[in-house]
Amino acid sequence: MADTADPRTEPVDPADWSCPVPLRDHPVVVMGHGGGGALSAELVEHLFVPAYGNEALAGLRDSAEVALGGARLAFSTDSYVVRPLFFPGGGIGDLAVNGTVNDLAMSGARAAFLSCAFIVEEGTEMSVVRRVAQAIGTAAAAADVEVVTGDTKVVEAGHGDGVYVNTAGIGLIPEGVDIRPHRAAPGDVVIVSGPVGQHGVAILSVREGLEFGAEVCSDTAPLGGLVQAMLAVTPDLHALRDPTRGGLAAALNEIAAASGTGVVLSERALPVPEAVASACGFLGLDPLYVANEGRLVAFVPREHADAVLAAMHAHPQGTEAAVIGECVADHPGTVVARTALGGTRVVDLPLGEQLPRIC
Amino acid sequence: MADTADPRTEPVDPADWSCPVPLRDHPVVVMGHGGGGALSAELVEHLFVPAYGNEALAGLRDSAEVALGGARLAFSTDSYVVRPLFFPGGGIGDLAVNGTVNDLAMSGARAAFLSCAFIVEEGTEMSVVRRVAQAIGTAAAAADVEVVTGDTKVVEAGHGDGVYVNTAGIGLIPEGVDIRPHRAAPGDVVIVSGPVGQHGVAILSVREGLEFGAEVCSDTAPLGGLVQAMLAVTPDLHALRDPTRGGLAAALNEIAAASGTGVVLSERALPVPEAVASACGFLGLDPLYVANEGRLVAFVPREHADAVLAAMHAHPQGTEAAVIGECVADHPGTVVARTALGGTRVVDLPLGEQLPRIC
Repeated sequence: MADTADPRTEPVDPADWSCPVPLRDHPVVVMGHGGGGALSAELVEHLFVPAYGNEALAGLRDSAEVALGGARLAFSTDSYVVRPLFFPGGGIGDLAVNGTVNDLAMSGARAAFLSCAFIVEEGTEMSVVRRVAQAIGTAAAAADVEVVTGDTKVVEAGHGDGVYVNTAGIGLIPEGVDIRPHRAAPGDVVIVSGPVGQHGVAILSVREGLEFGAEVCSDTAPLGGLVQAMLAVTPDLHALRDPTRGGLAAALNEIAAASGTGVVLSERALPVPEAVASACGFLGLDPLYVANEGRLVAFVPREHADAVLAAMHAHPQGTEAAVIGECVADHPGTVVARTALGGTRVVDLPLGEQLPRIC
Repeated sequence: MADTADPRTEPVDPADWSCPVPLRDHPVVVMGHGGGGALSAELVEHLFVPAYGNEALAGLRDSAEVALGGARLAFSTDSYVVRPLFFPGGGIGDLAVNGTVNDLAMSGARAAFLSCAFIVEEGTEMSVVRRVAQAIGTAAAAADVEVVTGDTKVVEAGHGDGVYVNTAGIGLIPEGVDIRPHRAAPGDVVIVSGPVGQHGVAILSVREGLEFGAEVCSDTAPLGGLVQAMLAVTPDLHALRDPTRGGLAAALNEIAAASGTGVVLSERALPVPEAVASACGFLGLDPLYVANEGRLVAFVPREHADAVLAAMHAHPQGTEAAVIGECVADHPGTVVARTALGGTRVVDLPLGEQLPRIC
């Protein structure tokens, strides 16, 4: 190999974070390539898109939109490798259902059918597999989606980690709905559906055995119903994103980059639960970069913002929805936060994920 | 745990092979649970179906049939954990495309769109990931299917094995086509689309460094075009199956069990390449149980059998198609082989897979 530097041990210059590192500088895959930040985007852009020869993949959406037999479908997949398998508020089974249901919901689609594939490590207790499967069944019922096809593979001990789950999902996109990152525009109001940072902190607390006063539970939840309630106000939602890996910072940066709009956040408006804030302070994490698994961020035309916010407040998944910012014509493609002290700071796309294997 | 016997070391009574072992006797997952035989079926029946509360899963088909937006869709998923990643005739990328395309084809559907999710072990060479992705792109183009959505997760070294790939696929089922294991019936002619056993022997040869005279290449190939050519003769194909894990024996047993028909095979009619036969003889394997990745077995009403066979011979994937048996009213649900010496033997459903991680 021409470049034998080990990128796992090389320090990363923070100045490079907003500028994807050329893929050729990574002779091997590092944890950050799975983090949903700049390294993941680079892998898609420089490796998968050229290999598949499919520009649709480069659309940076949570799901693909495809036409089949006259139906307009959303189609999405995610693998789940979260560690540990169970945590306060849920487990890998909940994530596997809600994560894919939510990816479909971010294009306005109502999830209809899921596939579900397990890769199980030899020697895993059968009771663990059953507990994961039962959580999938319960979560699917709650999200009103059916698991209709599946697969199980077993790998030798030392080549897995208990259970990895993949789900793919399909759903119908309603007529007249066109929700895409590219559609965000100056004037849009930015709304988050609830408190941020809970999932990441919940994982970290159980993984590291830390306590932060009150127990923090994952926010894992299906968002299809909330999106339908928002669409009932207006089909003209511009962009939706569930801020999972990379947190709000990644979601907002992706939409800013795709649409070329500037985004201004108000840090004071950001709903951060006290326990999350205290955990982040203790650990040196920024809540903007912590993963959520049951929240969405919406870019809504100003004239519809009040009514959409009211509809969100009326839905169980949106009772704490809040306006957190707006789109501006200034600094196109860049996300800026107004700090509580009145200053501003640039909110960059993260390079990887602060916490590996968060979902 | 009530039962602390280690099923990995307990001898299995061959008399139990056709009678699924109760799930409760397996406190932990063993390699055979991923083998596509009786243990896999048991996991689906006793664990996944009750957990998901969805009888559709119990339908024993390679793909699910779902209705969405007026379209009649086939939907399927498989994870691929084959070891090694590359082998004579193909690699994990080819399997990941062809395997899912073929699962859709077995319900008569033409695959249209694939999702593709990678679980990569930290430290895997980027060139390996690229080679897999490029094989996926090439195989997708050959199968006339588009990869439209994907995902990448990274796990720590020692929790994976290079690259695991999951694909899910959707395709349209043509009007008037109803291909299901349950439809096989006495009088049906059983046709295999080509020589059997190549994939399993190819994997084994490279894994164990064995040579069997001529190099044996995997038969991995997309079967959608072949199935369309068969359907052009008659939409009334009864049942189709691609004999992957568990080989022809598993495929035939599943169809016999689902339909309640008896199946009689002629061992002499079975197209087994010389190199495969010699490898199987050497290793003590039965070619009926060796995995194929580019073959199908068809149950065709007798009145259409000659025309269907002719159409298969005219297609590149079916030039060596052969009639290997028939369905009978005797011994319902059981597969019997007439041996070359004129005797008969029962061909049981395998318990697991002779060769782990074959796909």
